[in-house]
Amino acid sequence: MDGCEVVGIKNGWLGFIERQTIPLDLRSVSGILPRGGTILGTSRTNPYKNPEDLKKLLAAHQALGLEALIAVGGEDTLGVAVKLIKEGLKIVGVPKTIDNDLSNTDYTFGFDTAVNIAMEAIDRIHTTAESHHRIMVVEVMGRHAGWIATCAGIAGGADVILIPEEPIDIEQVSAVIKKRTARGKDFSIIVVAEGAQFKDGTMVAKEEKKDAFGHVRLGGIGQVLGNLIEERTGFETRVTVLGHIQRGGSPTAFDRVLGTRFGVKAAELAIKGEFGKMVSLQGNRIVVVPLDEKAVTMKTVDPEFYGIAKLFFG
Amino acid sequence: MDGCEVVGIKNGWLGFIERQTIPLDLRSVSGILPRGGTILGTSRTNPYKNPEDLKKLLAAHQALGLEALIAVGGEDTLGVAVKLIKEGLKIVGVPKTIDNDLSNTDYTFGFDTAVNIAMEAIDRIHTTAESHHRIMVVEVMGRHAGWIATCAGIAGGADVILIPEEPIDIEQVSAVIKKRTARGKDFSIIVVAEGAQFKDGTMVAKEEKKDAFGHVRLGGIGQVLGNLIEERTGFETRVTVLGHIQRGGSPTAFDRVLGTRFGVKAAELAIKGEFGKMVSLQGNRIVVVPLDEKAVTMKTVDPEFYGIAKLFFG
Amino acid sequence: MDGCEVVGIKNGWLGFIERQTIPLDLRSVSGILPRGGTILGTSRTNPYKNPEDLKKLLAAHQALGLEALIAVGGEDTLGVAVKLIKEGLKIVGVPKTIDNDLSNTDYTFGFDTAVNIAMEAIDRIHTTAESHHRIMVVEVMGRHAGWIATCAGIAGGADVILIPEEPIDIEQVSAVIKKRTARGKDFSIIVVAEGAQFKDGTMVAKEEKKDAFGHVRLGGIGQVLGNLIEERTGFETRVTVLGHIQRGGSPTAFDRVLGTRFGVKAAELAIKGEFGKMVSLQGNRIVVVPLDEKAVTMKTVDPEFYGIAKLFFG
Amino acid sequence: MDGCEVVGIKNGWLGFIERQTIPLDLRSVSGILPRGGTILGTSRTNPYKNPEDLKKLLAAHQALGLEALIAVGGEDTLGVAVKLIKEGLKIVGVPKTIDNDLSNTDYTFGFDTAVNIAMEAIDRIHTTAESHHRIMVVEVMGRHAGWIATCAGIAGGADVILIPEEPIDIEQVSAVIKKRTARGKDFSIIVVAEGAQFKDGTMVAKEEKKDAFGHVRLGGIGQVLGNLIEERTGFETRVTVLGHIQRGGSPTAFDRVLGTRFGVKAAELAIKGEFGKMVSLQGNRIVVVPLDEKAVTMKTVDPEFYGIAKLFFG
Repeated sequence: MDGCEVVGIKNGWLGFIERQTIPLDLRSVSGILPRGGTILGTSRTNPYKNPEDLKKLLAAHQALGLEALIAVGGEDTLGVAVKLIKEGLKIVGVPKTIDNDLSNTDYTFGFDTAVNIAMEAIDRIHTTAESHHRIMVVEVMGRHAGWIATCAGIAGGADVILIPEEPIDIEQVSAVIKKRTARGKDFSIIVVAEGAQFKDGTMVAKEEKKDAFGHVRLGGIGQVLGNLIEERTGFETRVTVLGHIQRGGSPTAFDRVLGTRFGVKAAELAIKGEFGKMVSLQGNRIVVVPLDEKAVTMKTVDPEFYGIAKLFFG
Repeated sequence: MDGCEVVGIKNGWLGFIERQTIPLDLRSVSGILPRGGTILGTSRTNPYKNPEDLKKLLAAHQALGLEALIAVGGEDTLGVAVKLIKEGLKIVGVPKTIDNDLSNTDYTFGFDTAVNIAMEAIDRIHTTAESHHRIMVVEVMGRHAGWIATCAGIAGGADVILIPEEPIDIEQVSAVIKKRTARGKDFSIIVVAEGAQFKDGTMVAKEEKKDAFGHVRLGGIGQVLGNLIEERTGFETRVTVLGHIQRGGSPTAFDRVLGTRFGVKAAELAIKGEFGKMVSLQGNRIVVVPLDEKAVTMKTVDPEFYGIAKLFFG
Repeated sequence: MDGCEVVGIKNGWLGFIERQTIPLDLRSVSGILPRGGTILGTSRTNPYKNPEDLKKLLAAHQALGLEALIAVGGEDTLGVAVKLIKEGLKIVGVPKTIDNDLSNTDYTFGFDTAVNIAMEAIDRIHTTAESHHRIMVVEVMGRHAGWIATCAGIAGGADVILIPEEPIDIEQVSAVIKKRTARGKDFSIIVVAEGAQFKDGTMVAKEEKKDAFGHVRLGGIGQVLGNLIEERTGFETRVTVLGHIQRGGSPTAFDRVLGTRFGVKAAELAIKGEFGKMVSLQGNRIVVVPLDEKAVTMKTVDPEFYGIAKLFFG
Repeated sequence: MDGCEVVGIKNGWLGFIERQTIPLDLRSVSGILPRGGTILGTSRTNPYKNPEDLKKLLAAHQALGLEALIAVGGEDTLGVAVKLIKEGLKIVGVPKTIDNDLSNTDYTFGFDTAVNIAMEAIDRIHTTAESHHRIMVVEVMGRHAGWIATCAGIAGGADVILIPEEPIDIEQVSAVIKKRTARGKDFSIIVVAEGAQFKDGTMVAKEEKKDAFGHVRLGGIGQVLGNLIEERTGFETRVTVLGHIQRGGSPTAFDRVLGTRFGVKAAELAIKGEFGKMVSLQGNRIVVVPLDEKAVTMKTVDPEFYGIAKLFFG
């Protein structure tokens, strides 16, 4: 990047609108490799939800005099980038989401770290399940795709893995648990993605409820599932919602290497003036794909891969 | 232990009653040092809750021909042991609880591991709090004593730590968050022990609620606190309940060394015939204390130590 | 594998020759997922080095009545398998080596775990380098290929990465260190694969020396390099040889998932009677390739990938 | 510390002499809790080795207008502090060394982290030892005291632990290994502190040797011991020198809490004007002891504690 001035835009599209920038020089990025999260911050602002925001964003782009923009994010961030490309902005995309649900790359960075954290949590919960003779339900991230559940579940030796891609069959789950009991295993681990749904559609995963103080209390799929399992099997069941601990923490080698390779390739593209592209991992190689609607389409878990998980049910 | 035959009793007092034993020889304990949990299993059975159980237990003791019994556990397990000593059983106690709330020892084993796991979770949540500009509430174990909250909170750099020993002052918590905001910190970490209570006594930490399916839904102190904070500060607040991930996992060096030293000393006492005693850590030394009511009295967090935590509020 | 009887052969080809087997049923494999190493043991015996051994091996194969053999290993183990296939044995191969140096798969399992361990060591050494103002040389595994060095080096933010694929230019290494010093960085991290060689060929990586007691003392490339750097730059230089700590330990999610997927596919092949094949990872998919000479050919580090590492030199 | 201005002195006594200071305000210490090492740097300069240095140091002290000095370190740093107190400097001491070898405190901070890192390395080496049927020698830190070896060795289940406090009896070491073999254990783990010495005094742990390039090549006790074991037992023996990976890395909860408590107490003492004191851990409490010759006397491993390690020999 010799000869280029690099600035970081803070807090996603919100920071772009508000022109919040920080210099990204050797000094400011020194020592960030082992750190989790982002030194740039994040937001959920989508400039296409408010014409005023879009106007401000385009004005900011002009004012900042950017010759190239590298957009780093998942479906939401890159979805906006795809639209901005049509407005004429010179953008290179980098796929980053812990959900691993982007179509045009084998992996997004952030995912491997989240899977390892979830796996370690399942390992620990395994210990308790075994010592205390319990059914343990572990709810992991994944609103629309079950990548974290499938990978962390297989890695953690879960007995059942439930994902948004396939409706939950509570009878099957109970049968697995009972089959294990019959084999002398008085504990089971059920991993469920937060976005998994029941087969019959009568149960919603997230229902809003108000508690005694009028606050909204959310009951996730994990808790609902745990109650049903306890009811049907008679075994003491405990629910753990991993939630925010799946984010943050020092990244794994896989994610650090992937992030570095993506960054190097994105910078190359920006310098060469190849815009409207996204960097992507295919096998062992970093390749370049169009940054278009297809790139930001959701990638759900391959049934063949999920089939591996199902092999171990029971 | 040369010349002794050692058997393990499975699943606590329940397993004693049911005469579930396994040989504890070199072969069966090989390789257990790095493993979390217990190869013996556990239960919550208290033989003093049911005269029949007690009778069976005493019969089992007779039948097994035990010359000495080493009881490993916390307030509950050792509380039963104290009573059994009065029945004439030859017992040596070993203090083991992740809550660290036994009076007559500086530390119980299991605690250091739980604190490190909670700290690592807080470290990760810190990343998200900072990147996403949020208030994060982390609920940790500790029904009656705030040891895990205080240690993991200080270690994780929590901005507020709330424990059962001191009522929660929601105004003070909000004030800390606002003071931080005024200093330019748009995130805060609040660590709360599951047994913490509000000042005015009007709010219970665990209220039973039924959801749409008639299942009991428990709302812990973390969720209640998060709602109140969001209401009073206007900042987006997220709650993480660490729950079962605080148990299990490979033990820390501190716990492995302490467990080994306790075990060696307990065996010595058993061989010498010194019963009615408990092994204990005082400073760097393993000492012997009576296994009596005092030994199983709860040790709450020292106000001076909690004062350290409070120094950093804000 | 329902309906099949599965036995494990202990200690590689040596155990095969000696007919050391253990049953591999649900009970014997229960709980092995989070454990490092192998419950089967290993050896370095190559039956093709001794005709007697080969004869015994073929006899053992007959005697054991194996309908299929799944060979799990790297260049050596699978190289023997390729030859045994020609003798008529029904073999399916699974690529497993921490060196990641097999040609016909994107990754071998064991590699990701080793890279993460090496990266964590480099992270820690980074701290010391910075606090103590030193040049730190870290020697990692990799006799013939620099995969671990390249990946762990990039992930750990090494300033120079040296691999067997490219001769070491000591002038260039010194220049990088001096350039960093000029920029105010009074420390550097040099990661070197054990098989790296100097440019001019005058220096051997492993020289045999005898110490005062007549024992052979091996000085690896790390130590030789450290001495040269200290001599040429005048900076205090310390050498760490990671050695055996790169093996063992609980596997990463990537390795556990890959190992599981490989195992499932290998079992499928064996059941279907598709022998002379190896399971392989290509992108996100498990595919089947011939288990032939090509499969056991060494895969060195792609110059383009190593080019990423070189971008950061200095 | 409200109302006080706090500056950090960089790089130990050398930085003091050279008046290298940085402000230590909320901003500069933000986020350092999970980081290993020191943001202040370190050096090995002892101002009492050179009268000129001492003169400069005293002049610097005057020039900087320090009302109080908090000296953080081990035997060397605090030894200098003890002398400077006699020159009239107002000093509070904080015991910090990974060696844990200071007399007047139960623990120094940094030690628990080092022990855990060493234990994890031993856990991993255990795996290899078992899979490969080898004797593994692990050399850990500890020039004069065997704290890390004893604690990490017990925690890691070492079969033999050798420390500077007791001469190595090579016959005994070989006997333990042979006894294990007789019991069917074809691997052993030997943990040795770098400062351990042989019984007969004829073998020095660190001999200087020159290699082909005239560089000094150090052969540590680990290598010497490994050679002797291989010679006497005939078993393949491998040596791992943990070295610098024992430093750095995110600190454990124990060390973070201890460092925080020490820091708070030291600040209190400085504000109250109580100089010539050292903060110290006794059991669960932070106490105040004189910062004098006794405080900087070496604390070797208690024979009773080392006796625990010896119980497991064989």
